[in-house]
Amino acid sequence: MNRCNLLFTSSGRRVELIQLFRFALDELAWDGLIVTADMSARAATAYVSDVHELVPSVSSPDYIPRLLELCQQHQIHLLIPLIDWELSLLAKHQADFERVGTKVAVSTQETCDLCFDKRQLSRYLKTIGLQSPALYNADEIDGAQFPVFLKPFDGSASRDARIIRNSSELKFFVDTIPNALIQEYVSGREYAIDGVVDQDGNVVCVVPRRQFEARSGEVSKGATERNSALIELGSRVLANLPGAFGCFTMDCIVADDGQVYVLDLNARFGGGMPLSIRSGANFPRWLLEICAGTPLHTTSQNWANGFMMLRYDQAIYVPATSEGGLVR
Amino acid sequence: MNRCNLLFTSSGRRVELIQLFRFALDELAWDGLIVTADMSARAATAYVSDVHELVPSVSSPDYIPRLLELCQQHQIHLLIPLIDWELSLLAKHQADFERVGTKVAVSTQETCDLCFDKRQLSRYLKTIGLQSPALYNADEIDGAQFPVFLKPFDGSASRDARIIRNSSELKFFVDTIPNALIQEYVSGREYAIDGVVDQDGNVVCVVPRRQFEARSGEVSKGATERNSALIELGSRVLANLPGAFGCFTMDCIVADDGQVYVLDLNARFGGGMPLSIRSGANFPRWLLEICAGTPLHTTSQNWANGFMMLRYDQAIYVPATSEGGLVR
Repeated sequence: MNRCNLLFTSSGRRVELIQLFRFALDELAWDGLIVTADMSARAATAYVSDVHELVPSVSSPDYIPRLLELCQQHQIHLLIPLIDWELSLLAKHQADFERVGTKVAVSTQETCDLCFDKRQLSRYLKTIGLQSPALYNADEIDGAQFPVFLKPFDGSASRDARIIRNSSELKFFVDTIPNALIQEYVSGREYAIDGVVDQDGNVVCVVPRRQFEARSGEVSKGATERNSALIELGSRVLANLPGAFGCFTMDCIVADDGQVYVLDLNARFGGGMPLSIRSGANFPRWLLEICAGTPLHTTSQNWANGFMMLRYDQAIYVPATSEGGLVR
Repeated sequence: MNRCNLLFTSSGRRVELIQLFRFALDELAWDGLIVTADMSARAATAYVSDVHELVPSVSSPDYIPRLLELCQQHQIHLLIPLIDWELSLLAKHQADFERVGTKVAVSTQETCDLCFDKRQLSRYLKTIGLQSPALYNADEIDGAQFPVFLKPFDGSASRDARIIRNSSELKFFVDTIPNALIQEYVSGREYAIDGVVDQDGNVVCVVPRRQFEARSGEVSKGATERNSALIELGSRVLANLPGAFGCFTMDCIVADDGQVYVLDLNARFGGGMPLSIRSGANFPRWLLEICAGTPLHTTSQNWANGFMMLRYDQAIYVPATSEGGLVR
């Protein structure tokens, strides 16, 4: 393959990830148009892609038809979704995209559903001998469990999540969060684990990274860590999923007693994945190679250990006189 | 002056601002060492400055002595503080810094105190004919005022601030926030206004910028707006302060009825100020010129209108094998 046109959906502010895909195309010496799609023309990624396309909300009945139209128009080889809310929907429509020549970098619907719903995820982890924080119903809490963690069962990026310290707080907050889930609060060191799974369900690479600091639910300071227990755990989680495909990021806590708890499993590129990639685990290149059916450039786990990421705000600046004014 | 050594305190993740100061030094063809100081070695700015120095907490009695030591050691001409908590303290010690040859880019203590305390700020604004949201005590609320805004009286970056919709929420939250302040909730368009004041209290330039989106209390999408009412308002706020000096950022809301409410006044470079600077209002260069007593390169208000900023996460990457490992 000498050409791979990419469509990133819900591209938002994922500028660095898209730049890293551009680098991967360059390394492979493949041509490739990079198209981003978002509800907003004011997405920073609109200014790093070759073409930015406006799309309706993921919840709109027009969303999938619009994406199919864009895939045909731009002859997209690979569609890479970047938020949780659309994964199951895209998985359901895999065959429609295949008919227009587009591979979607997504797992089966069963796996997307499992990742999205923390109750299903908790049951799955148990079947493979792993732990997640205990889940409670509000009426099961007798006081012994405080503090607990309250969050939406289908939440993303810590939105609306909070620590609850006593029954009056619980009583107050439980009705303020739709689909509230009450979770055992586990303290310890926070990790994310990135991984990629090929067409046959083989786990190609797994990279744990310690999270020192977060901002708006996303890592702002972290470092890779060659922790063999976490590498084994990440591989086990991904290898046993039904129909896993593509890139994943899971969040874990290593409790003070050494027990590992899996908090979240995202069936897409996680927000902090540029750290693993920059440390040498070239997930964009692996994904491109897997989708094209070409040999992998490496299966070495030789990413840099202790490689640190310190995030800061950078910006795209757009003069009002640029084409189309504020809306491109 | 051919040399200006700069010390940025509480430098944190203000990478872009420090880069813009470097550009300003280059434009002036001045030599200058850029030193950053922070409690953390893991500050992203540590990797864009010439020297990064660790300092104790602002609340430590050793903080000012340590800064004085650094100013002597690096022959600092200008100290630029970047968070609210240290402004009054630095203002109080101006003379100590002058004795070691360092100018501090800060207003008088009276003005720093006024900016830090929303009650004082509210009284000040009233004396110059401007509005801020009404302030209440918890026992004054009779239900007619909801929704209200609850926040610490001395808060920064929206930390702990929240909308309160009814008396049971108020009752619950009022004790969870130290130094709680209950403020009238005003809805409308959000603006920040940046400005710079010279040694004689003259307002050199004022730039309003509309804020479309915020993240963790800091602007993530915005655009400059040549709004003459807001320019006049910003100038009036700065021109009437007792002993104002250096750069300021204030937050305003233009309510649906056109009334302007001033929410906050920060006596330092605001987080979104790179937008104004990149639009052509070169605040770093003005500050350097003012402090050196050299003529201003321009007093033109010819910054670009409708100039848009779309922020995204960028990062500094640090291999573990770099000097000193994780701690530089």
